[in-house]
Amino acid sequence: MLVPELELFLMEDVGKFDLFHDLLPDKLINAKITVKEDGILAGLGEAIRIFDHCGVSSSYKWKDGDAVTGGDTILDLKGSSRAILQNERVALNFLGRMSGIATLTRRCVDMTAHTGVRIACTRKTTPGFRRFEKRAVMIGGGDPHRFDLTDAIIIKDNHIRIYGMEMAYKYAKDAGFMKKIEIEVENAEDAIHAAELGADVIMLDNMDVSTIIETVSILKEKKLRDSVVLEASGDITIDKLLTYAETGIDVISMGMLTHSSRWLDFGLEVD
Amino acid sequence: MLVPELELFLMEDVGKFDLFHDLLPDKLINAKITVKEDGILAGLGEAIRIFDHCGVSSSYKWKDGDAVTGGDTILDLKGSSRAILQNERVALNFLGRMSGIATLTRRCVDMTAHTGVRIACTRKTTPGFRRFEKRAVMIGGGDPHRFDLTDAIIIKDNHIRIYGMEMAYKYAKDAGFMKKIEIEVENAEDAIHAAELGADVIMLDNMDVSTIIETVSILKEKKLRDSVVLEASGDITIDKLLTYAETGIDVISMGMLTHSSRWLDFGLEVD
Amino acid sequence: MLVPELELFLMEDVGKFDLFHDLLPDKLINAKITVKEDGILAGLGEAIRIFDHCGVSSSYKWKDGDAVTGGDTILDLKGSSRAILQNERVALNFLGRMSGIATLTRRCVDMTAHTGVRIACTRKTTPGFRRFEKRAVMIGGGDPHRFDLTDAIIIKDNHIRIYGMEMAYKYAKDAGFMKKIEIEVENAEDAIHAAELGADVIMLDNMDVSTIIETVSILKEKKLRDSVVLEASGDITIDKLLTYAETGIDVISMGMLTHSSRWLDFGLEVD
Amino acid sequence: MLVPELELFLMEDVGKFDLFHDLLPDKLINAKITVKEDGILAGLGEAIRIFDHCGVSSSYKWKDGDAVTGGDTILDLKGSSRAILQNERVALNFLGRMSGIATLTRRCVDMTAHTGVRIACTRKTTPGFRRFEKRAVMIGGGDPHRFDLTDAIIIKDNHIRIYGMEMAYKYAKDAGFMKKIEIEVENAEDAIHAAELGADVIMLDNMDVSTIIETVSILKEKKLRDSVVLEASGDITIDKLLTYAETGIDVISMGMLTHSSRWLDFGLEVD
Amino acid sequence: MLVPELELFLMEDVGKFDLFHDLLPDKLINAKITVKEDGILAGLGEAIRIFDHCGVSSSYKWKDGDAVTGGDTILDLKGSSRAILQNERVALNFLGRMSGIATLTRRCVDMTAHTGVRIACTRKTTPGFRRFEKRAVMIGGGDPHRFDLTDAIIIKDNHIRIYGMEMAYKYAKDAGFMKKIEIEVENAEDAIHAAELGADVIMLDNMDVSTIIETVSILKEKKLRDSVVLEASGDITIDKLLTYAETGIDVISMGMLTHSSRWLDFGLEVD
Amino acid sequence: MLVPELELFLMEDVGKFDLFHDLLPDKLINAKITVKEDGILAGLGEAIRIFDHCGVSSSYKWKDGDAVTGGDTILDLKGSSRAILQNERVALNFLGRMSGIATLTRRCVDMTAHTGVRIACTRKTTPGFRRFEKRAVMIGGGDPHRFDLTDAIIIKDNHIRIYGMEMAYKYAKDAGFMKKIEIEVENAEDAIHAAELGADVIMLDNMDVSTIIETVSILKEKKLRDSVVLEASGDITIDKLLTYAETGIDVISMGMLTHSSRWLDFGLEVD
Repeated sequence: MLVPELELFLMEDVGKFDLFHDLLPDKLINAKITVKEDGILAGLGEAIRIFDHCGVSSSYKWKDGDAVTGGDTILDLKGSSRAILQNERVALNFLGRMSGIATLTRRCVDMTAHTGVRIACTRKTTPGFRRFEKRAVMIGGGDPHRFDLTDAIIIKDNHIRIYGMEMAYKYAKDAGFMKKIEIEVENAEDAIHAAELGADVIMLDNMDVSTIIETVSILKEKKLRDSVVLEASGDITIDKLLTYAETGIDVISMGMLTHSSRWLDFGLEVD
Repeated sequence: MLVPELELFLMEDVGKFDLFHDLLPDKLINAKITVKEDGILAGLGEAIRIFDHCGVSSSYKWKDGDAVTGGDTILDLKGSSRAILQNERVALNFLGRMSGIATLTRRCVDMTAHTGVRIACTRKTTPGFRRFEKRAVMIGGGDPHRFDLTDAIIIKDNHIRIYGMEMAYKYAKDAGFMKKIEIEVENAEDAIHAAELGADVIMLDNMDVSTIIETVSILKEKKLRDSVVLEASGDITIDKLLTYAETGIDVISMGMLTHSSRWLDFGLEVD
Repeated sequence: MLVPELELFLMEDVGKFDLFHDLLPDKLINAKITVKEDGILAGLGEAIRIFDHCGVSSSYKWKDGDAVTGGDTILDLKGSSRAILQNERVALNFLGRMSGIATLTRRCVDMTAHTGVRIACTRKTTPGFRRFEKRAVMIGGGDPHRFDLTDAIIIKDNHIRIYGMEMAYKYAKDAGFMKKIEIEVENAEDAIHAAELGADVIMLDNMDVSTIIETVSILKEKKLRDSVVLEASGDITIDKLLTYAETGIDVISMGMLTHSSRWLDFGLEVD
Repeated sequence: MLVPELELFLMEDVGKFDLFHDLLPDKLINAKITVKEDGILAGLGEAIRIFDHCGVSSSYKWKDGDAVTGGDTILDLKGSSRAILQNERVALNFLGRMSGIATLTRRCVDMTAHTGVRIACTRKTTPGFRRFEKRAVMIGGGDPHRFDLTDAIIIKDNHIRIYGMEMAYKYAKDAGFMKKIEIEVENAEDAIHAAELGADVIMLDNMDVSTIIETVSILKEKKLRDSVVLEASGDITIDKLLTYAETGIDVISMGMLTHSSRWLDFGLEVD
Repeated sequence: MLVPELELFLMEDVGKFDLFHDLLPDKLINAKITVKEDGILAGLGEAIRIFDHCGVSSSYKWKDGDAVTGGDTILDLKGSSRAILQNERVALNFLGRMSGIATLTRRCVDMTAHTGVRIACTRKTTPGFRRFEKRAVMIGGGDPHRFDLTDAIIIKDNHIRIYGMEMAYKYAKDAGFMKKIEIEVENAEDAIHAAELGADVIMLDNMDVSTIIETVSILKEKKLRDSVVLEASGDITIDKLLTYAETGIDVISMGMLTHSSRWLDFGLEVD
Repeated sequence: MLVPELELFLMEDVGKFDLFHDLLPDKLINAKITVKEDGILAGLGEAIRIFDHCGVSSSYKWKDGDAVTGGDTILDLKGSSRAILQNERVALNFLGRMSGIATLTRRCVDMTAHTGVRIACTRKTTPGFRRFEKRAVMIGGGDPHRFDLTDAIIIKDNHIRIYGMEMAYKYAKDAGFMKKIEIEVENAEDAIHAAELGADVIMLDNMDVSTIIETVSILKEKKLRDSVVLEASGDITIDKLLTYAETGIDVISMGMLTHSSRWLDFGLEVD
C-alpha cells in the first residue's frame, strides 16, 4: 500500500477529527484480533501495515494463506489505546473482505486440485479495491487473470459483433507483441477459428459441459489443442464447478470469487 | 463522484494505455445494459455519470430504488464503440455491487415494515468504497448509520473495558454538543445505566430476543424508554430478523447488508 | 496531518526548488521559537510534526492549551541549518493562526464560565483549513460544532422559506437516526414549534437578549425546555457576550472566533 | 482553481454524503448574495466558479476590486435549490476572507497613495490558502511579494547570523541569475554594506522612522539609493503606516494584511 | 490525459500565480504552431486537449503519425491572448518531445520494414512520462513493449544469477496464465534451454550478429523456432540496426528511442 | 522528492501488482550500480532516496557533480533481492536522464569557463519532470533560469507583437516588485529601448555573433551595459557556443541541455 492510499483508507473511517478518541487519556494496552470462524487468512499483511503506520506493534504466528480455525488469535497488538481504538475497523475490514475471498477461492481450488485446472477471478471487483481483491484470490491459490485492459487483450462477443473476429484479432496483434490475446467464443466452430488465427487463450463462454468436451476433442483432432490455453467462463457456480473442471480445459474463471463471497468474521478484543 | 475519483475508477480498469481499443476503428453504436435477475436498482446515477464523462449518451426510464425484473433494459446507450467497450466494466461494477446491496436491504426493510423498525448498515464496508455502499443501503430503504468516527460517537465494549462507561461518556460529551452518543451494552442493567447517563442511543449487542424484550420493558418501567433510541445489533441474519424487529426496539443494524450481499447481475450488449 | 497534506503545506512555502538553502553549507545549529505576546498556545503539535518530518528534533515544556506569556520559549530546536531555515515559516504560520484562535476562544470561555454556556465556532472557516481552525477552538476550550453538512443537520431560514419547517424536518429525520437535528428560528413561536416537532437543538438566530429570555421562559412553561439544547447565534461579539450567556441558554456560537481573530505573534531565532 | 482543488474545497464543507439535501425535493429557485457592510470586493471570481461547477448560473454587475456598500447585491443566482443550499457556504467563505483582506489592503494603499509607496503582504498566510490570500492583496491594490522560497531570495537575520552577509550573498548569487536578492538589515551600516554587495532589495527591519530617514539619506550620499529597492518591515500597523510611508522608501510590507484582517460579512438569501 | 494530470502539467509551467498574464488586457487573437524541421508528428492530440482545456479552439489538417515538413503549420489557434500566452509552452513541450521520439522510431521502422522485424522501446523512460513516450513510439510505428513489471514478465540475467532460470520460470508461471514470459539469454545454449522451458519470448541480449544467426539456426534445427518470439536487445544503434534486423529475429528493442532521441522543433507565432 | 511523488514514480514501473517478484523467495543480496561511460554524475541523491524508501541500504564514495569514468561503481547496495529487482529501473532512469543532462551541461560550462558566461537551461523540459531536469543542469554547473511563469517575467516577441514593449513592461512592473523582468529583442535598437525602460535582463534572441558584439558595444556607449544582464538565446549549439560566449554577454541559454541530451549509461549487477 502506498502511504497516501493507506492514509486515505484510515481517514475514510476516522473522518475529519475524531475528537472523542483524542480526548480519552492514552494508555498502553494489549489487544488481540481473533477469527471467529474457519477459513483462509488474507489481509494480514495489510492489517500489520496499518497498525505499524499508527505506531501499534503486532506479533503473529500465522501468515496470509494459512487455514485458520474459529477462535484462533491472528494478531497480538500492543500500543496506545487511542491508536488501537481509532484504527481497528479498517484493519478488520481488510481482514474480513480479503479472507472471505481467499476462503471461497481455496475451496474451489481444493475441489478441483486433482484436475490441474487453474481457478481465476475476473474484473468484477469493487471499484478502487481491485488490487486487494485479486491479491486475496491469489492468496487463496487462484489466478489473478488480467488486472486491466492494458495488460492483456480479450476479444469479447461485443468486439466480434462490431468488428468481426479476424479484424479484431489483427488490431489486437498490433497492440504489442508482449500481450497475450484471448478470444471469447460460444461454440466449437468459433473456437477452431480462434485457434487457427493464433489466439493464446480461448474463452469458452456460457457453454455447457458436453459442448466443452466436444470442443476440446475437435481441437485435439485438428492438432490445435496444445497451442492454446482453454478457459471456461460464465456463471460457473460451486455446484457445477467439478464437472467443468473435468472437461479437459485449463482455466475456470469465476466472477463469484469477488462478487458473491461473504466476509470472514474477525473481532478485536482489549485484554 | 468527484472528477479525480471518477477518473481513478476508470483508470483502474483501463490501465496505462489500452492500445487495443485505441486502434479499433471508431463507430457510432447503440448498446443496452440489461439486468439479468429481479432486484432493486442502485448505481444507476453512477453509471450514467461514467458514460457521460466518456461522451456516451444514455437514456433510461427506471431510477435508483426501483424494483426491476430480470430482462429489463436499464440503460440505452449511444456513442463511440471505443468509449463504450473501454468503459463498460466500471459502470457494470457499480450497478452490480450497489444493486446487490440495495436488493438485500429492501428485502429486510419489507420484512419488517409493519414494525416501524429502521434497518441500518454498519462500518463493515469495503475500504475506499463506503460512500457508495452506504448510498446503496439508503436506496434500498435502509439507514446509513454513522459514516465515520467523527460524525457520531459509539462507546463500545472495548471503551468501557478500558475507561468505564461513565468516564467514557464524560469524554464523549466533551467532544461536541452536536454529536449523538450511543452506548453499547450487553445486559439490561447496563442499558439502564446508559439511559440514566443520558445516552441518545443504546446498542443492545448480541442479546437474545427475550433479553431484549425484558430490557425494553424495564426501561419503560423506569420511564427511560422514550428518551433513547434502541438499536439491536450482532450477527442478526435474515431468518432471525423478524423476531428481533418485533421486540419493541427502534433500529436493527446488520453488517451483512454490506459484508454478505452478493451482486445483482447486469450485462451490456451491443445492438 | 496526513503525510501528503504535510508535504503540500511545506511545498507551498518552499516552492519548486529552493536552491539558495540547498547551496548553503549545512551546519548543526540550535534555534528557539518564542511567543512574543500573551496568549493560549495552539498548533504546537503541528509545529513539532513539521520539524520532525524535516529531521529537526524539538524539545518543549508547554503543551497545546497552556497559557503562555510574551517572551516564553515554546520550542527548542536542534538540527540542520538548512532544514530549519527552509521550513520554519510553515511551523510559525500554524502556531500564529491556531494560537490566535485559541486565545480569543479562551477569552470568551473564561468570560462565560460561571454560566455553564458552551462557546462554539461555526463553518465560517478558511477553505481547506477547517480542521485546524476547529481544533484550535477546542484547544481554547470551545466546541467545534458540526464539521460539515453530513455530520449533523441544521434547518436554516432558507430551508424553511422553501420547504416549510415541518417538511424540512421530515426529510432531516429520514437522513439517518444518528444525526442531531437543529432548527433555526427567529422568534419564540417558531422555537416552540421546533421543540414540539422534536428538534434536538434550536438555534435562536439574531434574537435580542430580552426575546431570548422570554423564549426560554415560554419553553419552560410548556415543559419543552429540558428536551432541547438552545443555541444563540448571529453576530454575538465580545462586548455583548456576557449578557447573552446569562439568558439561560446552553450554547453560543460565534463566527468571529475564526473570521475575526488575529494571529498570535511568534518568532524563530538561531542561537 | 484546479478542478480537484475546487472539489476538495466543496467536499470539506459537504462531507461524505449530505443526505439531507439529497432528500429534499429539488426546485428551481432564485437567490442573491448580498454584502452586509462597506468594503472592497474580492473572491467574486472564485464564488462564480464554484456555483458554475455546481450547475448554478450567476449574474452580477460588480467585479473584484470594486468598492461595494453594505446592502449591495453581489450575485444573483438561479438554479437547483439543492445545489444552492449545499454549496453556498464555501462561496461565502471565499468572499468573506478575500474581501476582508482586500478591504484592509485598499485602506492602506489609499492612505499612502500620495507617497508612491507599494504596500506588500508577507508569507504569513494560512497554510494551503496562500494563493487566494495573495490574490486578495493584489485585488486590494497591494503587491504579492514573493510566493515562496524559490521565486526570490531573502537573506534574513538568521542567515546572516550563521553564514555572514557576504557568504550568504555569494550563495544567493549562485542560485540563479533570474532571482532578485533581498537582504534584511537593522541599521544604516548594514544597509550600506548590502547595497555595496549588489542587493536588489534591502529590507529595513524593525527600524524606527528616524533611523530609516537617516539610512535613506546616507545611501543617497553614497550614490547607492538608486540601484536598490528599499522595503520597510516589522509590525508596521495602520496608525504608524503614514509616517513610514513618508520616509522615502519604496515598499512597506505588512503581515497584518493577512494575519490580522477580519472577514467582510456576506449572506445568501433565497427569494 | 486525466483532468488532474493535465492541470498538474499546466501548473508546473504556470506556477502559483502568473500575475503578469492575468494583468494583460485580454484580446481575441489568432496564432499558429509550426514545425521547424522535417519529422513525424506526435503529441498533437495532447496539444489540442491542452488548448481545449484552456478555452482556446484549434483547427488542423494533420494527424499524429503524419510526416510533416519544416515550415508546416500544425495547429491554427483562436482564443484569448492570455490563455494562449500562458499555456503554449506545455503544448510545445508535448509536441517537441513526442515528435522527436516518433521521428526516430519511424526512421528505424522504415529502415527495417522489408524484414518484418518489430522495433520496440524499453522501460528506459523519463519517470512520470512513460505513457506519453510509449505512445510516441507507437505513433512512429514501433511497439510499446511492456509498460510495467505487472503486465508481462522478463526473467533477466540478475534473476537467473540469483534463482536459476528454471526456478525463476516456475515462479513466473505461477504469477498468472495471462502474462507472457520472456527470458533473457546471452548464448545459444541458454536460448535453447529457455525455449524448451516454454518461454513465450527470448531476449538475445548483447549478442553479436553472427551469434544471433547461429542461435536462430540451432533453434530451427531443434524445431523450437516457431513457438517463440525472438527479441534482440543491448545497445543496438542505428548504424548496426539493419544487420541485426536481417538475422531472422522478430523484434529489436532499442532504449535509444526514448533515451537518446532529441526533440523536434516547434514554435508558436501570434498572427 | 515528496513521498507521494516518489511512490508514484515507483508505481509507474511496478504496475498494479508485480506478482512475479512477490513470489520469488526473498534473499539478502549485494548488488552494485556502475556507470558504463565517462560523464558527470547526477541523480545519485534520488537513487539513494529510492532504495532507502524500499529498505535497501546503499553506500557510495561519489557525489552528485563528480566526474566519473566508465566502469566506476556508483552505488553498493545491500538488501532484499525482491526490493532490488523490483525497484532498480526507476533509480537507473533517474541516474541516466539526470547524468546525461549534467554531462552535457558541464561540457558547455567548461568550454566557456574562461569567459565568465553562465550557461542556463530553458523551460523546454519533459512535462512533470522539470524540477529534476533543472537540478541536473545545476549539478552540471549551469543556471536553472526561471522555473515557471510566476517566478520571473519574460516579455517575448509574441507579447510585444500584441501589446507593444512599453505596455507589456508596465504590466510586468505591476506584477510585483520582487520579480526580475526580462525583455526579448532581436536587434540593437530594441535592446537599447529595453535597457532604457529598465529591464533587468535582455534576451538577445536569434542574433548572430557580430550583431551581438555590436549591440553590446552600443549599450556600453550609452552607459546602459552595466545595469542589465545580457542573455543570448536561440538554437545555440555546441559548435557555435564558444564564439557566442566571447561576445561580452553574461548568460547563454541552451534548450538543448534538456531537449537534446542523451542519457548516460548505467547498469545494476547482482554480485
